Amino acid sequence: MSTQLVAPLTAEDMVIQAMPDVSPPKWHLAHTAWFFETFVLAPQAPGYRVFDPRFGFLFNSYYNQIGTFHARARRGLLSRPTTAEVLAYRAHVDRHLLALLDEAPPAVLANVLPLIELGLHHEQQHQELLLMDVKYNLHCNPLFPAYRDDLVAHPAAASDPAEFLRQAGGVVAIGHDGEGFAFDNESPRHRVLLDPYRLADRLVTCGEYLKFVQAGGYRTPELWLSDGWATVQAQGWQAPLYWHADGDVWQVFTLGGLRPLDPATPVSHLSFYEADAFARFAGRRLPTEFEWEAAAVRAGADPAIGNFLDGAPVEPTAPPTGAGLRQLFGDVWEWTASAYLPYPRYRPAAGAVGEYNGKFMSGQMVLRGGSCLTPRGHARATYRNFFPPDARWACAGLRLADDA
Amino acid sequence: MSTQLVAPLTAEDMVIQAMPDVSPPKWHLAHTAWFFETFVLAPQAPGYRVFDPRFGFLFNSYYNQIGTFHARARRGLLSRPTTAEVLAYRAHVDRHLLALLDEAPPAVLANVLPLIELGLHHEQQHQELLLMDVKYNLHCNPLFPAYRDDLVAHPAAASDPAEFLRQAGGVVAIGHDGEGFAFDNESPRHRVLLDPYRLADRLVTCGEYLKFVQAGGYRTPELWLSDGWATVQAQGWQAPLYWHADGDVWQVFTLGGLRPLDPATPVSHLSFYEADAFARFAGRRLPTEFEWEAAAVRAGADPAIGNFLDGAPVEPTAPPTGAGLRQLFGDVWEWTASAYLPYPRYRPAAGAVGEYNGKFMSGQMVLRGGSCLTPRGHARATYRNFFPPDARWACAGLRLADDA
Amino acid sequence: MSTQLVAPLTAEDMVIQAMPDVSPPKWHLAHTAWFFETFVLAPQAPGYRVFDPRFGFLFNSYYNQIGTFHARARRGLLSRPTTAEVLAYRAHVDRHLLALLDEAPPAVLANVLPLIELGLHHEQQHQELLLMDVKYNLHCNPLFPAYRDDLVAHPAAASDPAEFLRQAGGVVAIGHDGEGFAFDNESPRHRVLLDPYRLADRLVTCGEYLKFVQAGGYRTPELWLSDGWATVQAQGWQAPLYWHADGDVWQVFTLGGLRPLDPATPVSHLSFYEADAFARFAGRRLPTEFEWEAAAVRAGADPAIGNFLDGAPVEPTAPPTGAGLRQLFGDVWEWTASAYLPYPRYRPAAGAVGEYNGKFMSGQMVLRGGSCLTPRGHARATYRNFFPPDARWACAGLRLADDA
Amino acid sequence: MSTQLVAPLTAEDMVIQAMPDVSPPKWHLAHTAWFFETFVLAPQAPGYRVFDPRFGFLFNSYYNQIGTFHARARRGLLSRPTTAEVLAYRAHVDRHLLALLDEAPPAVLANVLPLIELGLHHEQQHQELLLMDVKYNLHCNPLFPAYRDDLVAHPAAASDPAEFLRQAGGVVAIGHDGEGFAFDNESPRHRVLLDPYRLADRLVTCGEYLKFVQAGGYRTPELWLSDGWATVQAQGWQAPLYWHADGDVWQVFTLGGLRPLDPATPVSHLSFYEADAFARFAGRRLPTEFEWEAAAVRAGADPAIGNFLDGAPVEPTAPPTGAGLRQLFGDVWEWTASAYLPYPRYRPAAGAVGEYNGKFMSGQMVLRGGSCLTPRGHARATYRNFFPPDARWACAGLRLADDA
Repeated sequence: MSTQLVAPLTAEDMVIQAMPDVSPPKWHLAHTAWFFETFVLAPQAPGYRVFDPRFGFLFNSYYNQIGTFHARARRGLLSRPTTAEVLAYRAHVDRHLLALLDEAPPAVLANVLPLIELGLHHEQQHQELLLMDVKYNLHCNPLFPAYRDDLVAHPAAASDPAEFLRQAGGVVAIGHDGEGFAFDNESPRHRVLLDPYRLADRLVTCGEYLKFVQAGGYRTPELWLSDGWATVQAQGWQAPLYWHADGDVWQVFTLGGLRPLDPATPVSHLSFYEADAFARFAGRRLPTEFEWEAAAVRAGADPAIGNFLDGAPVEPTAPPTGAGLRQLFGDVWEWTASAYLPYPRYRPAAGAVGEYNGKFMSGQMVLRGGSCLTPRGHARATYRNFFPPDARWACAGLRLADDA
Repeated sequence: MSTQLVAPLTAEDMVIQAMPDVSPPKWHLAHTAWFFETFVLAPQAPGYRVFDPRFGFLFNSYYNQIGTFHARARRGLLSRPTTAEVLAYRAHVDRHLLALLDEAPPAVLANVLPLIELGLHHEQQHQELLLMDVKYNLHCNPLFPAYRDDLVAHPAAASDPAEFLRQAGGVVAIGHDGEGFAFDNESPRHRVLLDPYRLADRLVTCGEYLKFVQAGGYRTPELWLSDGWATVQAQGWQAPLYWHADGDVWQVFTLGGLRPLDPATPVSHLSFYEADAFARFAGRRLPTEFEWEAAAVRAGADPAIGNFLDGAPVEPTAPPTGAGLRQLFGDVWEWTASAYLPYPRYRPAAGAVGEYNGKFMSGQMVLRGGSCLTPRGHARATYRNFFPPDARWACAGLRLADDA
Repeated sequence: MSTQLVAPLTAEDMVIQAMPDVSPPKWHLAHTAWFFETFVLAPQAPGYRVFDPRFGFLFNSYYNQIGTFHARARRGLLSRPTTAEVLAYRAHVDRHLLALLDEAPPAVLANVLPLIELGLHHEQQHQELLLMDVKYNLHCNPLFPAYRDDLVAHPAAASDPAEFLRQAGGVVAIGHDGEGFAFDNESPRHRVLLDPYRLADRLVTCGEYLKFVQAGGYRTPELWLSDGWATVQAQGWQAPLYWHADGDVWQVFTLGGLRPLDPATPVSHLSFYEADAFARFAGRRLPTEFEWEAAAVRAGADPAIGNFLDGAPVEPTAPPTGAGLRQLFGDVWEWTASAYLPYPRYRPAAGAVGEYNGKFMSGQMVLRGGSCLTPRGHARATYRNFFPPDARWACAGLRLADDA
Repeated sequence: MSTQLVAPLTAEDMVIQAMPDVSPPKWHLAHTAWFFETFVLAPQAPGYRVFDPRFGFLFNSYYNQIGTFHARARRGLLSRPTTAEVLAYRAHVDRHLLALLDEAPPAVLANVLPLIELGLHHEQQHQELLLMDVKYNLHCNPLFPAYRDDLVAHPAAASDPAEFLRQAGGVVAIGHDGEGFAFDNESPRHRVLLDPYRLADRLVTCGEYLKFVQAGGYRTPELWLSDGWATVQAQGWQAPLYWHADGDVWQVFTLGGLRPLDPATPVSHLSFYEADAFARFAGRRLPTEFEWEAAAVRAGADPAIGNFLDGAPVEPTAPPTGAGLRQLFGDVWEWTASAYLPYPRYRPAAGAVGEYNGKFMSGQMVLRGGSCLTPRGHARATYRNFFPPDARWACAGLRLADDA
């Protein structure tokens, strides 16, 4: 599916990197192939020869145990290998993966299959990153080009006020229970003691957030964490990323280009600092990741249902009608009040694969739920996404919580 | 006592600021007086006239609700007011505080006394900061001048290996119980569910940490969090702040000048990243702040006993002999695995005083216990100190923990 | 010819910008078309409609009087317009230029022709810049891709020692005499008083410069201007840009890829600081731009003959045999000891075209002669090229001079 | 006299360094003593022992041949040695200098005297720098403290319009003729060919410059060199350094504190970029350093007469009445159109003293004449002062010139 996602892009779009946090689309295509080559083919496929030994340096993202790697901020300087060469690389890797699955004896397969499963989930993560990055890159162009010209907006009626649904406290089990795939950071399953609390039954909307903007939220230091206020001033933030004001009229840059702000849709592309400040403005707070997970599990959210990426990239939509917790999955990732830390007795996997999650457990906040750019099937109630508190290019918003 | 602490300093020492995180000694003296003037005298003392209206701009640290303030990084550019003028300012404030206590009617006193208590604890915090800052400032001078020439080192015999003492799990009460003074970030008292765990019976020593250095700890990315490793490389860290190698011989800069490394004393001036990497190297982990507090409460640590600042600034010392958890207080602050976040149902105080703690609950890690620069009486089992994970100028080390 | 120069490039190569000083190849193609559109078609062609009004913002390089412009350092973030769209833009502009030349009445033609001539020389300058930039961009790729794979190196025999040819002093006329095209910075022609001097009969070679490198030239502060030495240390310079050492074996990155260093060819891609330090090391000095021009005029260098760009980009070559001043033109630009300042009574042209040269007469040094990337016909004895003293991506070397 | 200059300063004032270009007052006192110790006493005084061997590292400004040195930008972090210790250092050096003069045999004296003379002129330069730096440091304090409270302003009547006096062209001799002391950069004396030109008979005044400010000079890119305009935008310049607007009322920070702008006094604390932009605004230009020197020599300016530092630091004053070129010396240094480059056949002195001037001949512009902070006797017609084009903390203004 990754290659379908880049179909609407020009060769030129495949190269650019508008800030260090994003990567060029063709880098994503190459890196996900490199992951399979490095962790599956090279150690497990007898006689496999790497496609190009120099790609190990170019397309290793951050695995120190594999070797040195090309500086992240300089990925956009690489015109070569071209997209065509990257596609050839992917075809080569795919071919050998299929051959390996075909020919490997059972003992090898037992080793290989979990790594391939990891590689597939890794690629799903990069599908979301690729679209986040394309959106950011295109937005830096004063021409505001659309990723796709055929995306139709469906403005909705204004939403009803959110209702705050009471959730029971007590000792809850948190973390993955071992059924199906999960990343190591979702384990071990362990018990957490919660006070009773309340959760909004839907996401915060653009219309609600607009009131914060219009009330001077970005000029009121009392509403912000100290680091957040410093960021607001240093970056000159006045609204969410991708919002543009022409006088009192607001437009939002989407993968379909600039569009009028739709008050009923969930607000997106917020940093943690903005989500936190809005919650304070609203007299509420963010939920912890444990509160969120306990409620999602209770709501029976398995499999996860929501507005996901299904081949066709979409934008967040207004909440469906109905009772209970809506929009738990899809639309936008939900910032929580929890720092990204290891669960008790957490141990990363041995070897370089262990660098996947554990070493990033510092300086980041947890998000839950999934977004409209998340591949369906990649979301689950125990999934822990994470970003630094000032990151805004993710499809991230919030759901309010409160003490019971 | 603050003015006693600066007695060994020259007029020139009072001005300098060797990095943005530290403040000139005379700034500390002025800021703590400003705190009393702003939060006690100005609102509560009838007819009080501020000493100099321009000081409000110069000596407000970060209270946005009080007004704009002089940039933190530029405090070292202020030769005026001189130390003599700052001392006159302090005398003026002290005089009016005493008069207020003397003359205020009971209803006013009831308002005033909690603010004065807060101001005194605020000043104790700045006494520790002042000495941390003086140490940092003097260390930046290639002459390595001592703060005091009369501080005698007492090298100890090598320590016995640490013992890991089992601690029970279960639901524990965390946070201040309302007896005596506490900062707002220690409340509300609430319940936390812990697994059983083990705690080292003493702090990690310089001798133990030296092995980490000699084993190439600062050149081994697998031992570090990703942000930590980036910091090691960007800053060129090769050992704790204040350690100097001359070939294989190590010296440590102290408030008494350069001294040979004493293997039995607690390692200090570590960042969180270094404490975390050492724990990984040792095959252990850092305790959470809840594990630490539960153990300290159980150990009956009230009042806190340890190697504290008693007028005479000291350095960390080797652990006392004896059984049980030693060095829980004093010597060095202990990094924990906990991010600095609000306790459930935490609410900052109303008004500008509410900016004291709450707005800093982002991007920092909790430390527990107190150091040899902490005034005796300022430490307690529920006290939450906090610094960014890369900060090294605090008197901070670690105690190892493990799963039971 | 500009479009021929990009024929060997991939679509991906057309986008990248590896440092703020270089521009993406497709930006050069668009900017030179914009120059014609803005200064010729828009004001002079009746009824002309601009191709895309947003291109004025994107492709204005620095003409404040035309309006605001896209930040130079962000040119590499623009994937759109694509190369195909830029080529359509060029075709549109070319078509209208030809129509204008065809249909304009004589009075308009008299206005238009000098501007078209300026536009053509402007485009020639950008042809050299385009190749300089392509070389720099490709060199930043660890794969070291060649611009063209069919460029053959012709290693030459070692050169004879340079001979220093005596040049007469006295009052000489400097600057353009009005015959043929010249930029405004070559005027007014004026008189300068020179002492007798001596000029090397050829350029400094790679072999000679290698001795400077091997003698520790990059580690000897006495050889450098203060700003130069600061740059050496800040940038970690150890050899010219594009030189790579593998032990004692040196390779040089060229438009044909990595090649063994050829000691007989002129050293290139030096900064002024390096040229100046080498001259000091050699016990000589750089010539002034007046000494250079007087010698070139005396040598009868009209038309300029040398190793120029003739459609096929080339690399510097060993000096031809023969007596007299060789390599005055082509091969590499020659750094002079002269700061880039206006000639006496210099006046820039009126209007935005006057921003072409005059406003850059600060902080730069003059180079003379032309390089192997300069289109033949663009070079002349009075031509003043200029770069900041730390710039290394130009094809620039030096010729030694001395007092008589 | 240097120690008299610091008499009005507090101990705290002696330490601070408000930007990397300035030095703490006590650093100047120590550095000038170090110069004598290093270049005179150590090599020439038999048995001399350096006062403190560590001072060589701390107080070497930039002499690479003497050894490594403390980073310039960190001079303000040194509280030790204290001012008292620095004064003891100076007394030690003075005592040994006197003893050397007393006891040295004639052959040694012949070596020593030129170095002592150089040291004295070096110290005079640092007297001016010290006052420039004190002014800058005090100005960074929001309290705007005065260096001296007893400096009285003498507002003058508005000046008559400047007259432009015609100066003959032809071949002139430039540079020092060997009579009396001169720095090496004033030699060798050589011939320069000048066109006839015209020079304003006085300096540009604050009143004249205010019109440039009020006409939007700082918002008009056409008036500026490209580097200058970039600096205006990056630094947010809106007026000369030390000018403060309160609505339409302008005040100027002086060594006597804030004062109303006096339109008749020379404008000061301009960068080269501002001087150049003003000249363009006025339809004139800056003189070259050769034009200035030729006119000053013709005017018989020997000894130099003007408003100089005579123990008591002063501010620029309105021009005296009278005919001819006024204010050639004193008041403010005059920016010229000349880059700071070596004179033909210039050779620096051998050894470390040769680093005094030559290595700075890059990236700077020449100023002529001297200022109100220049010690009388330090100024002469051939003197070449120099600063980078964006430097504003020197007492520097301009005199207009024009073509004849």
